[in-house]
Amino acid sequence: MSNPQDPASAGQSPQSGQTLWGGRFSAKPADIMQAINVSIGVDKRLWAQDLRGSRAHCRMLIDKGIVRPDDGAAILGGLDTIQAEIEAGTFPFRDEYEDIHLNVEARLSELIGEASGRLHTARSRNDQVAVDFRLWVRDACDRSVEQLKALQRALLERAEQHAGDLMPGFTHLQTAQPVTLGHHLMAYVEMAGRDAGRFADARARMNESPLGAAALAGSPFPIDRHATAAALGFDGPMRNSLDAVSDRDFALETLAAASITAGHLSRLAEEIVVWMTPMFGFVTLPDDLTTGSSIMPQKRNPDAAELVRAKTGRIMGSFVALSTVMKGLPLAYSKDMQEDKPPVFEAMDALDLALTAMTAMVSAFRPNTERMAEAASWGFSTATDLADWLVREADLPFRQAHHVTGAAVKRAEQLGVGLAQLPLAELQSLHPGVTEAVYKVLTPEASCASRQSFGGTAPEQVRARIAEWKDRL
Amino acid sequence: MSNPQDPASAGQSPQSGQTLWGGRFSAKPADIMQAINVSIGVDKRLWAQDLRGSRAHCRMLIDKGIVRPDDGAAILGGLDTIQAEIEAGTFPFRDEYEDIHLNVEARLSELIGEASGRLHTARSRNDQVAVDFRLWVRDACDRSVEQLKALQRALLERAEQHAGDLMPGFTHLQTAQPVTLGHHLMAYVEMAGRDAGRFADARARMNESPLGAAALAGSPFPIDRHATAAALGFDGPMRNSLDAVSDRDFALETLAAASITAGHLSRLAEEIVVWMTPMFGFVTLPDDLTTGSSIMPQKRNPDAAELVRAKTGRIMGSFVALSTVMKGLPLAYSKDMQEDKPPVFEAMDALDLALTAMTAMVSAFRPNTERMAEAASWGFSTATDLADWLVREADLPFRQAHHVTGAAVKRAEQLGVGLAQLPLAELQSLHPGVTEAVYKVLTPEASCASRQSFGGTAPEQVRARIAEWKDRL
Amino acid sequence: MSNPQDPASAGQSPQSGQTLWGGRFSAKPADIMQAINVSIGVDKRLWAQDLRGSRAHCRMLIDKGIVRPDDGAAILGGLDTIQAEIEAGTFPFRDEYEDIHLNVEARLSELIGEASGRLHTARSRNDQVAVDFRLWVRDACDRSVEQLKALQRALLERAEQHAGDLMPGFTHLQTAQPVTLGHHLMAYVEMAGRDAGRFADARARMNESPLGAAALAGSPFPIDRHATAAALGFDGPMRNSLDAVSDRDFALETLAAASITAGHLSRLAEEIVVWMTPMFGFVTLPDDLTTGSSIMPQKRNPDAAELVRAKTGRIMGSFVALSTVMKGLPLAYSKDMQEDKPPVFEAMDALDLALTAMTAMVSAFRPNTERMAEAASWGFSTATDLADWLVREADLPFRQAHHVTGAAVKRAEQLGVGLAQLPLAELQSLHPGVTEAVYKVLTPEASCASRQSFGGTAPEQVRARIAEWKDRL
Amino acid sequence: MSNPQDPASAGQSPQSGQTLWGGRFSAKPADIMQAINVSIGVDKRLWAQDLRGSRAHCRMLIDKGIVRPDDGAAILGGLDTIQAEIEAGTFPFRDEYEDIHLNVEARLSELIGEASGRLHTARSRNDQVAVDFRLWVRDACDRSVEQLKALQRALLERAEQHAGDLMPGFTHLQTAQPVTLGHHLMAYVEMAGRDAGRFADARARMNESPLGAAALAGSPFPIDRHATAAALGFDGPMRNSLDAVSDRDFALETLAAASITAGHLSRLAEEIVVWMTPMFGFVTLPDDLTTGSSIMPQKRNPDAAELVRAKTGRIMGSFVALSTVMKGLPLAYSKDMQEDKPPVFEAMDALDLALTAMTAMVSAFRPNTERMAEAASWGFSTATDLADWLVREADLPFRQAHHVTGAAVKRAEQLGVGLAQLPLAELQSLHPGVTEAVYKVLTPEASCASRQSFGGTAPEQVRARIAEWKDRL
Repeated sequence: MSNPQDPASAGQSPQSGQTLWGGRFSAKPADIMQAINVSIGVDKRLWAQDLRGSRAHCRMLIDKGIVRPDDGAAILGGLDTIQAEIEAGTFPFRDEYEDIHLNVEARLSELIGEASGRLHTARSRNDQVAVDFRLWVRDACDRSVEQLKALQRALLERAEQHAGDLMPGFTHLQTAQPVTLGHHLMAYVEMAGRDAGRFADARARMNESPLGAAALAGSPFPIDRHATAAALGFDGPMRNSLDAVSDRDFALETLAAASITAGHLSRLAEEIVVWMTPMFGFVTLPDDLTTGSSIMPQKRNPDAAELVRAKTGRIMGSFVALSTVMKGLPLAYSKDMQEDKPPVFEAMDALDLALTAMTAMVSAFRPNTERMAEAASWGFSTATDLADWLVREADLPFRQAHHVTGAAVKRAEQLGVGLAQLPLAELQSLHPGVTEAVYKVLTPEASCASRQSFGGTAPEQVRARIAEWKDRL
Repeated sequence: MSNPQDPASAGQSPQSGQTLWGGRFSAKPADIMQAINVSIGVDKRLWAQDLRGSRAHCRMLIDKGIVRPDDGAAILGGLDTIQAEIEAGTFPFRDEYEDIHLNVEARLSELIGEASGRLHTARSRNDQVAVDFRLWVRDACDRSVEQLKALQRALLERAEQHAGDLMPGFTHLQTAQPVTLGHHLMAYVEMAGRDAGRFADARARMNESPLGAAALAGSPFPIDRHATAAALGFDGPMRNSLDAVSDRDFALETLAAASITAGHLSRLAEEIVVWMTPMFGFVTLPDDLTTGSSIMPQKRNPDAAELVRAKTGRIMGSFVALSTVMKGLPLAYSKDMQEDKPPVFEAMDALDLALTAMTAMVSAFRPNTERMAEAASWGFSTATDLADWLVREADLPFRQAHHVTGAAVKRAEQLGVGLAQLPLAELQSLHPGVTEAVYKVLTPEASCASRQSFGGTAPEQVRARIAEWKDRL
Repeated sequence: MSNPQDPASAGQSPQSGQTLWGGRFSAKPADIMQAINVSIGVDKRLWAQDLRGSRAHCRMLIDKGIVRPDDGAAILGGLDTIQAEIEAGTFPFRDEYEDIHLNVEARLSELIGEASGRLHTARSRNDQVAVDFRLWVRDACDRSVEQLKALQRALLERAEQHAGDLMPGFTHLQTAQPVTLGHHLMAYVEMAGRDAGRFADARARMNESPLGAAALAGSPFPIDRHATAAALGFDGPMRNSLDAVSDRDFALETLAAASITAGHLSRLAEEIVVWMTPMFGFVTLPDDLTTGSSIMPQKRNPDAAELVRAKTGRIMGSFVALSTVMKGLPLAYSKDMQEDKPPVFEAMDALDLALTAMTAMVSAFRPNTERMAEAASWGFSTATDLADWLVREADLPFRQAHHVTGAAVKRAEQLGVGLAQLPLAELQSLHPGVTEAVYKVLTPEASCASRQSFGGTAPEQVRARIAEWKDRL
Repeated sequence: MSNPQDPASAGQSPQSGQTLWGGRFSAKPADIMQAINVSIGVDKRLWAQDLRGSRAHCRMLIDKGIVRPDDGAAILGGLDTIQAEIEAGTFPFRDEYEDIHLNVEARLSELIGEASGRLHTARSRNDQVAVDFRLWVRDACDRSVEQLKALQRALLERAEQHAGDLMPGFTHLQTAQPVTLGHHLMAYVEMAGRDAGRFADARARMNESPLGAAALAGSPFPIDRHATAAALGFDGPMRNSLDAVSDRDFALETLAAASITAGHLSRLAEEIVVWMTPMFGFVTLPDDLTTGSSIMPQKRNPDAAELVRAKTGRIMGSFVALSTVMKGLPLAYSKDMQEDKPPVFEAMDALDLALTAMTAMVSAFRPNTERMAEAASWGFSTATDLADWLVREADLPFRQAHHVTGAAVKRAEQLGVGLAQLPLAELQSLHPGVTEAVYKVLTPEASCASRQSFGGTAPEQVRARIAEWKDRL
């Protein structure tokens, strides 16, 4: 009845060549069915999680007397062999067994025979894949948190070096007010901190075990879901079996966190690209983080920064992809959900590369602090300081001070000088209350030093924030 | 120089007709500039937050001696008048003042004169809009949590009514195993619980005050950011002024939470649509939650469910829209960020409607429990129970039991009967270990009742979960 | 039976207060049903299309003898009155009539009485909204084509002025090779040409009439769909009634065209933002296309460019929104499709603003041609010319020439000079075949002038392309 | 200086171990740089296009005397060898050569030595990858058109078989009016026709050659871009070298076409899933297009339909991914654009599978025509026919006829009968003009047959449309 000579039939069963879904089907799946259905190329990546889940399930079955100790030992031994084979690269991944679960099961059957058929007691691929995937995503969240902390540490180190180095603060990419490079870098420490928080929250929320939900309705066997949950590091079992096998919100939440993180990285990447232009000349990257051109020998291209910026697309697209897949699916498991893994794997791989590359760039970029300081004085960047001075010292309402300052800038522009070079008489003609003392606030250094409000750019403020973050990390 | 007869010029200043950005500009903004720049039509919605932020800022300026008490009192009085005008519908929203901030400021100037110009001391529109928008989004998160709890309560009530009523549990929308309607509804209680958790986490993470970051670099005035943060219900001030004015991750996180929630709603909405078809006939909605047709008088259309399903598109699109806006923006504020509000307002309005409509439908739908119970027995829905029986009673490995069961189903199909009607001899011909006792597990009631594993569909399990949730809510 | 005192009931019929969907419903729609269902606030915008479609339908009904001439005349007269009322701002748009179709019908009933009820013969709201929306989208495509042509004309004019003005050509935003500003602008003429082509193709494909598909199955009345199609400027009637009322691919295709166009605009907008920085100093915009700052009086912000860049988000988000709405909807009309209009209206409005603003900026920006020419010589921008010279004159394989040039750049960098300043001896030490003649190719002018390949940056090439486009437009 | 012992360094040159970008770089790329930069794993797929482009370029270089015939012959011979190696699976794809272009070039150098260095004359990777990718996308469009035609033929064949078989026409998934299965299938023929049109338009628009644009500015060599364009099947060369290397709108347009197509497929897939439920029981799929369950032996799951539905997510996500990548990129080439290929390859692969699987399902599904016809009479599906009869025969305005019909449906519902079973007296009590003749229009057959309007569901209409399409295909 079975046909061991034809290993290519989809759904081939591990045991005695019977097709997996039993004696009912009379025809082999069409080629296209096989082609669209097979997922082993993607989900083989879950092998470690699959083995881990199977071990926890098997031990619980033994403990609860559902599987005999000798069968259980055979299963656990077989799983060890499989792990060794996979690690050694000798495991035969086979398309005809469709996915990682059936590949493992088929191999287990080859290794230990009939006992292998007892592992699937009180379990379904529906809860099996849910637990495998959840374990993978949980690990990915943990890894992202670690990588974000590494990025924060790199940022903190550079921020400390440059806590007092001036650069232009931009709005609309126009020079607005002087800030320090350290202050600028610390903005990304804050963003990365929130990003890590999102992954941590996602991790905490997803940390419930779907194992034991079986196909969708739970199991009539006396299983202990709390035990398997604990063995797998979950806080406990999920409370509804339908929910357990049919939701992927944990993956979506992780993709959203990845997408927001990628957005933050894209901003710093953009800045690196812009700052490296000859026109800005703010920073350089070492040769080992740039590339050359096949036709223009002089080029030092910020490829890594550009690729980090571009990864945002892949990651955002993945959130859209999985959201679209899940939209409008009735409960419980639908095969649509097999399309959950490619976007998650791709997005988390992309994020992994992007975070690593960004951390390397942050650690290695060389600022041209002279050039940055010079640029900090362009564009009348201390105009607000003049306005603030008029408020404080001449008691003007801010709006009026703003207007006087606008006129001063216009005059300085006409004379082709900076605000600090504008003669006192000119300033006094705009407002009689101006005194010689005003010039003290019109340098970028003074401007920066004056912004002592909590979280402001004054170097003491920046250093205080760095110290706090060092304590937290 | 100024032209008080022309109120239509953009950037018109509140005081003495001076343009807002002072004496430097010689030409009026072009019409298209005005058209693309104006946002009052959208951001007028932030009026309450804007007044709240201004009051907190003003009181702090008084307390710190930056603004004199009499000027401060005038400002606070003016803000009260403005609130009264807005609530009465008499406030003159004017396009020429571009946005809500300038509209309020201009009106304040008209009401109290020069003192109004002191409110903007140590503040910029950059931190002002950041605080306004953050307050709005925080409220929206709170509202979503409340609405999700209301939905959970509605689901719990219906789940309790139907904790023991059978229905088919589906995978691939094929009958898989019997479950109870209560169990099915409880799956959505779990999802809504996680959804509420996401909004709560987003709320906690965003609950830091950007006020006092000023344009981007902080302020030289001796402001007290902790005081304004406390006054506005924030946990404290944001720690980096550049970050405070240039990030919108709190909005993105909220949109992601909304998008995932909408995805969940779309699934229940799809089920309602499918279940209301004459072919399923599982549920009806009362007339006041359906609509008719302009051409087909007999129709009772599940419009509300369809619209809930469709809102997913708007909400997901909003996440994409804002993510795209923020991608690759250098620090700090860029005008691109003015495009943050439309997607958030639209998405949260859509979610608000969707949650309310879904709660109404959950409370009002009428299940045809007889029809559902009947369908629970179709499609050999207790086949797994036969397989499980063979494992337990005949000690077959699950895979072999599965194969025997498949053959039994095939035979029953040939004979045109259900599994419970298959003669014992037939079953025994497939496996000799089958006994009369097997028929006890082949009814949907028995199947359902047997799934006593934690989170399973057995009515006791369902009722236990309901009780737990009632305690939590 | 009817209750004329209660205009607020949804589905209220135009005639004698009967509810629209007849005598079957016993309860009024719940408030939330009304709130989620009403669309008049959005679709009132279709009024002109709705009247146009109704006139075409009415005239056909008269011509075919389905409606008597006197009734038909009354209907057409009523529609004229309604148009006059809407144009005068006196038309009573009422939420209780749900959408634009019922608002018009209700008003028609008030105006002409019972005859109004004959207009809906052989028509349903399903084909009515399909034709209205299609007419609107068709107009939007036409408008986009016109606006793209206007943008192209503006670009051509500026390209002609600057066909010979040097600027750095960038890759990776690093100086790569000299190009001309005219050549750079012409790249956008090409993009806009393809963008216009996409709108034209979408327009051609959608230009079939759904009118007469009725609810979904066609009509038993002897209607003439070819006549109504012709009257409305369609190429003919759609060939399948189910398809006619249930697809919105014409809207999706238009949104995709808009999204791609917006992407192009975002690139030019980004360049304007970057080029306007003090570091680049390549261009300025006149005051009437920039804005100032409420706190920094000196700022000239490229808000219009930033807003154009940001509109990309809204437009892309709209494509996602509608795609998500349509995903997985069974035929024919589902209420989900009511969510088709907001994304389309918003996206096309955003594109309208973005195209107009970009055209204004292109016409008005002032290049600093000296600064750009100077920058064109930075970064060893003629290195490729040296390599090409070595290939041509010294017969080196390109790869080897590339390597020699790299060494020359390195040496020039060490000496702190440009390539053109590198002593001949230095060059000859790297390759003996270099002669004095090489210096002729090392200026940006020579580099640019030499790139005479079709579509290259040599000024003659640029001018030839400008001339061709002028002929085409 | 060079290190031939270390083939793993990125940018390794084919010739004499020099790094590709010459003598300037002193450090090896960092590991992360290598990891984020390498693309050979993805773009190896462009090998055939790369060879094709290189051959065309080489032949042109020979014809124009830029490369000597003997060198040219060596190059062409080497390319043939490479093709043979790749086809035989012996070609050494190496990560250290980064991408397909450098892998081919490195191998060519190994095969033919120094002459290989002449192939890159007047070419850059920027125009090389642009031409390769464009050729690939062009092929993908052609393939999609062919697959859509195959789907149309399958639909036509089934539509012809079932042109007269009744089924319920749905709106809101409620029974609305009877249609025929043939008519329903023909709706998808129309959609697929427009889908094919979009791919054809995209193909026509992209059919211009970027080759010869070189890095970004064109070439000083006397190349003939028209010749290479013709050799590669393009209509001509692109007209602007910057545009040629920096746009990817052809890929976006193709992804948009794919996305809209996938949306259409998702609708039919959803219908198959719903129609296969035991409740609908409208269709079955043969065993070879369904799968079983690992735990529920009786299941016949419509996996292929679900996977087709799910592919929509991947394809839509790809459009978002690439749109996001391109947003705001300054001209010309940026490394971000390396992220163009993964979304396109993934989306077009997914579409390929989805179209093939859908065509197989369309050809193989087995309708239960009795069940469908029965369902066509449910839900008072001929109510509109009654209303239309009242208009035609009793001269009621449609709106009044609609109201009378509503009352009739209500009465029939109360009596528990269909409309056709409602006693004449009942009907006459609602409107005195009703006669015995009305019963002739109240059967689904009569209803369907009466809808003779162009594009309506009357079998003659359906058959006429089928005939037209057969002529067109």
